Amino acid sequence: MDPLARTPPPPYYAVVFTSVRTPEDDEGYAATAERMVELASGRPGFLGIESVRDANGVGITVSYWSSLDAVRAWHADAEHQLAQAQGRARWYARFRLRVCRVEREYDFTRDA
Amino acid sequence: MDPLARTPPPPYYAVVFTSVRTPEDDEGYAATAERMVELASGRPGFLGIESVRDANGVGITVSYWSSLDAVRAWHADAEHQLAQAQGRARWYARFRLRVCRVEREYDFTRDA
Repeated sequence: MDPLARTPPPPYYAVVFTSVRTPEDDEGYAATAERMVELASGRPGFLGIESVRDANGVGITVSYWSSLDAVRAWHADAEHQLAQAQGRARWYARFRLRVCRVEREYDFTRDA
Repeated sequence: MDPLARTPPPPYYAVVFTSVRTPEDDEGYAATAERMVELASGRPGFLGIESVRDANGVGITVSYWSSLDAVRAWHADAEHQLAQAQGRARWYARFRLRVCRVEREYDFTRDA
């Protein structure tokens, strides 16, 4: 997967999810995280995702969506709701989630 | 530094910077990255920063600002401009920068 999402010209929406993992259940977490990317990718209005987690368990995942309705529908998805509940119960010590409207975008690729 | 920025109630602005590092000049990059956080923190309208880079050199940094004018002033800062030029010349293979208006925020802290 390309680490940089190929999003269309703005405006569109971004969900910035910043989290601190517990030390618990790496395997279950990883499997669910992978499944959520697969599930989100098939949802209407999905534009892309970027996700990084460092060795300290701090992660930032940004998913991109065509509209607020698409963000809401993804949030309300039944399988995603179950994953959210597991996240609060086991996987995350803390998180902050911000819903944003992307207004401008700049790209840079270095000359080879 | 708290990995989760303590931002005020929305609306405010987020600059999402997703990047892929070159293998070059880790030391110079790290020193400048640290200096940019220090410099940004002192700028008018700065609200906080969250930053993660993984072992593959993929990073997401989100800085938060009170207004678009504050974002523009930070972008135009002379020392920051110099760092941006070094970034394009040496440190980044690719990046994507998105300027966003934060509309909603949710927090979660797990019970101890």
